[in-house]
Amino acid sequence: MWLRVSSNVEMEFQVESPMLLLLRPRSDAQQWVARDHYAVRPTMPITEYTDMYGNLCQRLLAPPGRFQVEVQSDVQVPARVYQEPGAPFVPVQALPDHTLMYLAPSRYCESDRLGTLAGEIVQGYRPGYDQVAAISDWIHNNIRYLTDTDPAPVSASEAIGRGAGVCRDFAHAGIALCRSLSIPARLVVGYLHRLEPMDLHAWFQAYVGRRWFTFDPTQATTAGGRVWLAYGRDAADVPVFHQFGPPVVPSRMDVSVEEIAGPV
Amino acid sequence: MWLRVSSNVEMEFQVESPMLLLLRPRSDAQQWVARDHYAVRPTMPITEYTDMYGNLCQRLLAPPGRFQVEVQSDVQVPARVYQEPGAPFVPVQALPDHTLMYLAPSRYCESDRLGTLAGEIVQGYRPGYDQVAAISDWIHNNIRYLTDTDPAPVSASEAIGRGAGVCRDFAHAGIALCRSLSIPARLVVGYLHRLEPMDLHAWFQAYVGRRWFTFDPTQATTAGGRVWLAYGRDAADVPVFHQFGPPVVPSRMDVSVEEIAGPV
Amino acid sequence: MWLRVSSNVEMEFQVESPMLLLLRPRSDAQQWVARDHYAVRPTMPITEYTDMYGNLCQRLLAPPGRFQVEVQSDVQVPARVYQEPGAPFVPVQALPDHTLMYLAPSRYCESDRLGTLAGEIVQGYRPGYDQVAAISDWIHNNIRYLTDTDPAPVSASEAIGRGAGVCRDFAHAGIALCRSLSIPARLVVGYLHRLEPMDLHAWFQAYVGRRWFTFDPTQATTAGGRVWLAYGRDAADVPVFHQFGPPVVPSRMDVSVEEIAGPV
Amino acid sequence: MWLRVSSNVEMEFQVESPMLLLLRPRSDAQQWVARDHYAVRPTMPITEYTDMYGNLCQRLLAPPGRFQVEVQSDVQVPARVYQEPGAPFVPVQALPDHTLMYLAPSRYCESDRLGTLAGEIVQGYRPGYDQVAAISDWIHNNIRYLTDTDPAPVSASEAIGRGAGVCRDFAHAGIALCRSLSIPARLVVGYLHRLEPMDLHAWFQAYVGRRWFTFDPTQATTAGGRVWLAYGRDAADVPVFHQFGPPVVPSRMDVSVEEIAGPV
Repeated sequence: MWLRVSSNVEMEFQVESPMLLLLRPRSDAQQWVARDHYAVRPTMPITEYTDMYGNLCQRLLAPPGRFQVEVQSDVQVPARVYQEPGAPFVPVQALPDHTLMYLAPSRYCESDRLGTLAGEIVQGYRPGYDQVAAISDWIHNNIRYLTDTDPAPVSASEAIGRGAGVCRDFAHAGIALCRSLSIPARLVVGYLHRLEPMDLHAWFQAYVGRRWFTFDPTQATTAGGRVWLAYGRDAADVPVFHQFGPPVVPSRMDVSVEEIAGPV
Repeated sequence: MWLRVSSNVEMEFQVESPMLLLLRPRSDAQQWVARDHYAVRPTMPITEYTDMYGNLCQRLLAPPGRFQVEVQSDVQVPARVYQEPGAPFVPVQALPDHTLMYLAPSRYCESDRLGTLAGEIVQGYRPGYDQVAAISDWIHNNIRYLTDTDPAPVSASEAIGRGAGVCRDFAHAGIALCRSLSIPARLVVGYLHRLEPMDLHAWFQAYVGRRWFTFDPTQATTAGGRVWLAYGRDAADVPVFHQFGPPVVPSRMDVSVEEIAGPV
Repeated sequence: MWLRVSSNVEMEFQVESPMLLLLRPRSDAQQWVARDHYAVRPTMPITEYTDMYGNLCQRLLAPPGRFQVEVQSDVQVPARVYQEPGAPFVPVQALPDHTLMYLAPSRYCESDRLGTLAGEIVQGYRPGYDQVAAISDWIHNNIRYLTDTDPAPVSASEAIGRGAGVCRDFAHAGIALCRSLSIPARLVVGYLHRLEPMDLHAWFQAYVGRRWFTFDPTQATTAGGRVWLAYGRDAADVPVFHQFGPPVVPSRMDVSVEEIAGPV
Repeated sequence: MWLRVSSNVEMEFQVESPMLLLLRPRSDAQQWVARDHYAVRPTMPITEYTDMYGNLCQRLLAPPGRFQVEVQSDVQVPARVYQEPGAPFVPVQALPDHTLMYLAPSRYCESDRLGTLAGEIVQGYRPGYDQVAAISDWIHNNIRYLTDTDPAPVSASEAIGRGAGVCRDFAHAGIALCRSLSIPARLVVGYLHRLEPMDLHAWFQAYVGRRWFTFDPTQATTAGGRVWLAYGRDAADVPVFHQFGPPVVPSRMDVSVEEIAGPV
């Protein structure tokens, strides 16, 4: 299916502010970007590099005053998320080298402290895909969705502790619980078709049965229609927009996803 | 300056043909892509990966029949090429690790066989930038530009031997001569504003004075207004469009570069 | 100077245990390994890969029973750590791309929560090297060294909170405080000549004045004679030896560092 | 099986000479280096980096006079080369991204000019492993082995043209012929147990049936007991020892491979 996705962010800077943005979707084997439009106002130099996860990262130095970034892309993505109940757990010794970094605890995913809970959640489930699905369901049923984004990010264990969070927290919880069972898991940030209310979104992927599978604990079912912007170990790795210096909250943040017939 | 660059290529395939394309410009510290549009007809799945040089590579399987690819981008690039006569030669032991691969001979740049000629050309010039400029001038004055692209690519020494070639051959000659003096050199493929006749273009970069400098031996002077599509050791590394199977010549190949006021 | 470094670790496994080890020093521009000896008992297949930081990582599947790994290397390293008081802070917009990942918070370095403390510590110091030195001194003077390694690792803010820690905690504190000031900082794990009591050690590096500088807050002065085994964002990235499965404490852990006249 | 491999090379330099060496075997999934010893005389600074193929590369600046390098390693390798007659050809569109660079022609492997010959050689063989085996046999039967190493390296088509060559030429011929059939192929440089006469050796690998297979056209049968030092597209990529400046022939070059019971 073809999706037209866009983000329109405005901020008001008091001082010159270096920024790091991960707002340009990249083509790979999962999605094809046929059209792309990236604009900042006022006009300023921008450079781009690829980080160690393969994400496209934009760097700029925003002058004081109003800053606006607007990105729009037409992207072809799978209409359905691939699922495979029963896909087996891959023992650590058989994991590909490149997945091992997704076993370690990270800033917001203290997998080293969630082993007992994970063990309880997956009890009775077959090791692998079914365990991850059980974790995703447990999160969906036990963490309450907060409509107000919390300005100070919390970790997976903090979110589980208070029983509430935003999509990023749901994903972090899934990641931390999977890793505590030696299942590699990573964060995905991007767009989801028909998300309510519409916003940038976060979900996670787990490596079982020799491939990465997508799980979205915020949603009752993991629907297709996803455009990824960035992969990482957790949100600390993928600051979709991040300014260095005094914290600034966007004065405007419009996100839209619409299905289109095809590329123009 | 802002350039709108586009390529429109048509081919007629007798059989299903796997293709590798490097037609999408990437943003980096040298150029910023504000708008991008990539279309193939008929519609078919495309995947993209980043090669070891950082080039974006598109893969597809073209069905029999007419195949068309059309790419258009708005890109901000320097209006002038940075020059620094006198920039010194960097001794091999002081070269950064990542430049060493650009010292070795490659398919179309047999630097191992051009040392004597290079020594003659640069005689009397200061080691470094001035030697590279002398090489570029020598090529411009001693190789005749062929307006008909030769279907079978030739190497630098073959092009020098026959005293004629296309832009790729001019660049290969520059690369091979530089490398024979232990100056790292690499091929760049892309667009050049005001190229006559307009087409995709090739030039080279040499590493002296601790950075890469651009040289274009096809042109009397190395003007600015360049959008790069791919870097590589030579044209074997960067097949801007390459089909596997029986050779096919494009039935249409339109390239355009126009200056625009700014991104739309 | 030449150092002969060795680690001899023994563990008793109840069950077959996948392991990840980072015990082989690698040669680079900072150290040269002239001799290397890596043995495990009992004999078992071992594979090695290079992680995204360039560390050599060994993988194996230890059978139940006694497991022993012994690594010994002769390494040439600088006798003194390079210091440069006054080296300036590099503004975020001028940092090389590859250093940016060392600005983000990580599992044990919650730089997002230590900005106020960091501001207090560096008050009155010139931005850059002098701030990092002030942070390192503050840690040395305000955190008490624990001789008993804590089995459950704590984070920088936890270690600062309780005013005590092991070398890893000292380094994590330095890293987290630097990052909160937008100074890239990373963990180094390895050997230190004349460490008392001798053990594997951890320190940190900060990027100021356009290069990485070494700081060791555990020590009164940052002496030379350091062999690095692994770089990472924090200890979660560089598990010098890590077994997956039920936790196991080494039954023996001998580390030695002796100066030698030169390679044999 | 365990092999003790060593190289002892001596050269006489008239002038200070930068050198690039690839003489240190690396551990990976195919071989495990349990002991390693790398010495140069006179003593001089050496640095090491990893190239884009994953090879360990040593850099140094040899002073005028006698230069000696001696490397000895104990390595565990498979006693037999894995073979799989009938393993199928992988169509280009199904090849993993990382294998595509091994389809392009390279300095010594002009696959763009050997398609007709390759087609003749493999006529009647099943696409894939059997074609590669036919190519390897054809080379063994049609190229005469030269015991004197030719100082000026020749390319695959030159070696085929004169019907004679050294091991590197045999491997280059295999690589070029495979690539002309759209089979990825790469050079391997290293040690072979029981090679007669003993020397450093070169062979090739081809990607069929979804993995790399080893072929050694210099030998009547592709025996096991191989320690790899470097992978690359051809010998231009992997200069096992290469000095920049006036050509120098080793005054001594001792290579040995002996089977040992196990690591010391």
